Amino acid sequence: MEVTLLDRRNFHLFQPLLYQVATGSLSPGEICAPLRSILSRQKNTRVLLGEAVDIDPRAGTLTLKDGGQFEYDSLIVSTGSKTSYYGQDGWRTSAPSLKTVEEATAIRHKILFAFEAAERETDPGKRTAWLTFVIVGAGATGVELGGALGEIARHTLRYDFRSIHPPDARILILDGSPRVLPSYPPDLSTHAEGSLRDLGVTVKSGVKVTAVDAGGVTYEEPGGGHQRVESKTVLWAGGVTVTTFGRKLAERTGAPTARAGHIEVNPDLTVPGFPNIYVVGDLALAKNREGKPLPGVAQVAMQGGAYAAKAIVARLNGPKDLEPFHYFDKGDLAVIGRGRAVANIFGWHLSGLFAWLVWLFVHLMYLVQFQSRILVFVQWGMEYLTFSRGARLITGEPVKDAEVE
Amino acid sequence: MEVTLLDRRNFHLFQPLLYQVATGSLSPGEICAPLRSILSRQKNTRVLLGEAVDIDPRAGTLTLKDGGQFEYDSLIVSTGSKTSYYGQDGWRTSAPSLKTVEEATAIRHKILFAFEAAERETDPGKRTAWLTFVIVGAGATGVELGGALGEIARHTLRYDFRSIHPPDARILILDGSPRVLPSYPPDLSTHAEGSLRDLGVTVKSGVKVTAVDAGGVTYEEPGGGHQRVESKTVLWAGGVTVTTFGRKLAERTGAPTARAGHIEVNPDLTVPGFPNIYVVGDLALAKNREGKPLPGVAQVAMQGGAYAAKAIVARLNGPKDLEPFHYFDKGDLAVIGRGRAVANIFGWHLSGLFAWLVWLFVHLMYLVQFQSRILVFVQWGMEYLTFSRGARLITGEPVKDAEVE
Repeated sequence: MEVTLLDRRNFHLFQPLLYQVATGSLSPGEICAPLRSILSRQKNTRVLLGEAVDIDPRAGTLTLKDGGQFEYDSLIVSTGSKTSYYGQDGWRTSAPSLKTVEEATAIRHKILFAFEAAERETDPGKRTAWLTFVIVGAGATGVELGGALGEIARHTLRYDFRSIHPPDARILILDGSPRVLPSYPPDLSTHAEGSLRDLGVTVKSGVKVTAVDAGGVTYEEPGGGHQRVESKTVLWAGGVTVTTFGRKLAERTGAPTARAGHIEVNPDLTVPGFPNIYVVGDLALAKNREGKPLPGVAQVAMQGGAYAAKAIVARLNGPKDLEPFHYFDKGDLAVIGRGRAVANIFGWHLSGLFAWLVWLFVHLMYLVQFQSRILVFVQWGMEYLTFSRGARLITGEPVKDAEVE
Repeated sequence: MEVTLLDRRNFHLFQPLLYQVATGSLSPGEICAPLRSILSRQKNTRVLLGEAVDIDPRAGTLTLKDGGQFEYDSLIVSTGSKTSYYGQDGWRTSAPSLKTVEEATAIRHKILFAFEAAERETDPGKRTAWLTFVIVGAGATGVELGGALGEIARHTLRYDFRSIHPPDARILILDGSPRVLPSYPPDLSTHAEGSLRDLGVTVKSGVKVTAVDAGGVTYEEPGGGHQRVESKTVLWAGGVTVTTFGRKLAERTGAPTARAGHIEVNPDLTVPGFPNIYVVGDLALAKNREGKPLPGVAQVAMQGGAYAAKAIVARLNGPKDLEPFHYFDKGDLAVIGRGRAVANIFGWHLSGLFAWLVWLFVHLMYLVQFQSRILVFVQWGMEYLTFSRGARLITGEPVKDAEVE
């Protein structure tokens, strides 16, 4: 059996820790692992750097961006999701989101530069706008970003400036849901909100963002009134939509799609009518035994990938009926800051230090490379002891209109 | 006494290890330290993010890029040098140099992408061009880059590809001098060249590069004939010239300059006629007691900075005669690869493993932050054991026309 891994990037990105790159705790190299080195011992597998832009599912060919063609017998599509600005793509420029390494370093640039600009600003109104940080979205990413920003302002930068007092920074999380982490049990949402409050982060729930521009955000309150927040740093932790290739796949196969373009797959994760095309990860809309859609999280993607690989091998070894994909939910974890996290594991609701230790252990274990694990462990150890952040660099373009697919 | 540190960047870059970022061994965060955290305990010092573009040395004011003005009583100018393409600025696009973090990641992109492109290329001629790497310049940077490229091709990537055999890569160092590391004693140059040869690197000495473009390099041989090398990856490790602000300072003060624009300073490192303006580092042309110009290396810059600070304090404490600046030369070190280095320390010529251990120790000790030191030590330990490179990421723009000042 010959396997080809086709990817636009030459590395695997460990997405759950990307917010730590954006907030200066880790370097990109620590949460990325080169695909070739992960697979270098797997001799039947080749890695190709390239981007699939089209597919002919009847002929079994992919078209690459540079015009090349690629043939397959079986295909696993896992192109994931990209950030959705709910049709307001103009907001992207003012409010970057957190999907790629480039965006993470651009957000790091934006956050750190805001404190630098505030230090030099003499006009009190403008200074306040530089020291106001708004995060749109109160899911795991929004909560993690908010908590990290709270720690940066309260601890990391506390003694580093002379004209401003970083703990005075205003950090705001806006979300349409009635509570943070809406997919978690309500008591854990309450815990998370308390932890955020301890770090000086204000949560506005049930609000609707109506405008984002370079000067700030306007939102509609539950009562109906409009509020304007002047802020030079707006970060987007909102929803997702499918990638361009995902849309192309749906178009070419005629597969049914859900609202945000996710492909409704068969119980064995194949595209209806194409038993040799599997869709796994964020692009797929798979369902559990009760018919409830599975969430777009890493666990579902990882288990889906393993299932698809086994299914292909089983099919090559002769026709037999394979059990449909069954998702084993290990639970949910979200971190807010040092010693603060919430976890919902097999129905147990954990919060505080213990949840944080579980979070730490799980994330270190899932980090792909042994070397990264040691480095991240050292970085986190130093950060825990000193509240310092080793990767507080303002590099690259100020804020580039990063490609987010 | 009030001190202001004005810099365009918010971090200190440990330049001697920048080639390790370019070759995927280290992440930018590991060789950079935020200025604010270095100076956070020094309460009389403030850090400002800004770029000086002009000076009025009689009024004692600096003009910043954003239009702001800044007054000083005493000034230390250490704006360093930028890469010189010997008047051929068009070569910059095809042959990036190694001065900034952004350039280092761009070079990393270029090197790693070349192997990826070769893996996909089917035309033998084009594949050879992707697998040919040319470094212009055989000083410390050129030798370090060449050695690291040799290790990447021979060890790191050895088993990672299926269509190409990375050790077949051709690595070429071109230089006008008759030997590599021309500032070192001849026996160490011979050692270094032997180590490079062991890593599959070819050195062409005494040649003159006459053209650089996207397709390769043309050079003139000592005999006079012209050679063309088809290569998709040309890296520039040539000479340096002074920064724009350095030129402005010379213009405004009427200071004498050397050929590449370096300011010829007084024995106390001040600009002639301006006893309150000190120039240290690569921008200055200081001389030792025998009247020989001091080299543009980190040691001279560090000792110059310490001297200028002491001189200012002494002058504020009352007029007295200060000893002229005396440079204490601790020696030179250049690394070629794992266990391979050359060193000239107090007249002792060291090479091989022992020189490499000295290099390791010195560079770890001078890394500014304790945290970075531990991380780099771990990274190097892993790399030594496994030949892996933890930061083999292709990120950012393909090759951007980076600002190199």
